[in-house]
Amino acid sequence: MRIAELSRESGVPPATIKYYVREGLLPPGELTHPNQAQYGAAHVRRLKLIRVLTDVGGLSIAVTRNVLASIDTPGTSLHAALGKVQYATTPRRDYQANEPTRATALQQADELIARRGWQLNQASPARQLLAEALAAVNSLGRADLLAKLDDYAEAAERIGAADVELVLGRPDLESMLEAVVIGTVIGDAILAALRRLVEEDVSARATVATDGARTAARSRANAVHAAAETQPRAT
Amino acid sequence: MRIAELSRESGVPPATIKYYVREGLLPPGELTHPNQAQYGAAHVRRLKLIRVLTDVGGLSIAVTRNVLASIDTPGTSLHAALGKVQYATTPRRDYQANEPTRATALQQADELIARRGWQLNQASPARQLLAEALAAVNSLGRADLLAKLDDYAEAAERIGAADVELVLGRPDLESMLEAVVIGTVIGDAILAALRRLVEEDVSARATVATDGARTAARSRANAVHAAAETQPRAT
Repeated sequence: MRIAELSRESGVPPATIKYYVREGLLPPGELTHPNQAQYGAAHVRRLKLIRVLTDVGGLSIAVTRNVLASIDTPGTSLHAALGKVQYATTPRRDYQANEPTRATALQQADELIARRGWQLNQASPARQLLAEALAAVNSLGRADLLAKLDDYAEAAERIGAADVELVLGRPDLESMLEAVVIGTVIGDAILAALRRLVEEDVSARATVATDGARTAARSRANAVHAAAETQPRAT
Repeated sequence: MRIAELSRESGVPPATIKYYVREGLLPPGELTHPNQAQYGAAHVRRLKLIRVLTDVGGLSIAVTRNVLASIDTPGTSLHAALGKVQYATTPRRDYQANEPTRATALQQADELIARRGWQLNQASPARQLLAEALAAVNSLGRADLLAKLDDYAEAAERIGAADVELVLGRPDLESMLEAVVIGTVIGDAILAALRRLVEEDVSARATVATDGARTAARSRANAVHAAAETQPRAT
């Protein structure tokens, strides 16, 4: 197909397609005439993946390029190939903690990992991500949050098992690696959304009593106030 | 305290503190002399919160300003106040789905919400976030991922209940609202990290058989190959 059809199929404007080719995110089409390139189904698939990474995942062009490269040059074992893609989609943050704070947080992360019996590579960027989040928790003095860590870990164990099941259920290596990217990036967005929806629901139920008591107290106060005044007042 | 001490206490450089004041993220200090401002414990606390939002949460200055404003001008009921802060910390993404795709995804989101019996405001930005993620899942033809949605929802119910418990356990309204921000932003990071760690662990266990079989097959192939060649070869 030509670029106009590729644009219709993928929903990506031609100028953006050309930009992705220039940036090395999308392989160029096959030149059939000096000024005309032909594209195939692999281009449609890759374009949809790029849109998900940049729009849903909010990944930069540079990170997206790395993620796609990790699919195109897989590791030597299946575990290494899956890991390479997952590491590429893990955000690197730069929380400015001082050395003792950082060391304490890394130890807390390792203690949790040991407690759960997780088999991990020391170089896992998620270990760093966890340690940075814990350093932030510590800097804010929120020991109550640390006490809930195993609850989060248990929920994560359930989710992670479902994630890997989805990946290993795909028919071939390329689909598996794409599934890692999709599961990681869209999975983060789905979980962030679901957690917020549940929080709103739990808050609606839990604060009814509080807000009811508060409204009643305010009504009483207003009634007292109104009785003490001679003029009607706006509330 | 003067700005130098505020900088030491918070770990934020003086120039950055001045920048946050100019950008409306941090209230100015009290002017004791024409050129000297005094800061207090509230400034230290606010600065730590700003660093967590921008460094761990990766929030922009504009979003951070909104989040802080939602703490400083709370809603009229406790539920509304918590909701205002949570909505401010929810990412707004712009996934370019066409109208039918968007409508289908929103319906899928509402079906899940109804199935779980969650009480929600229709305007909840997390509902939009979920719908956008589902639109992306649909565009990639990943029905297998949709089938796991209730597993994710169950895990989210456990996490969301823990989140709200932490918030309502705080001693006053300002601490509760700060806890919403911290729980939402750091919670996203902690969950993203834990999920990846679990995935790596599950993958390590699940792919042992596959990789073992693959390595054995490769060894056999190499042996056949080596036997057919007269020269030793590097592998």
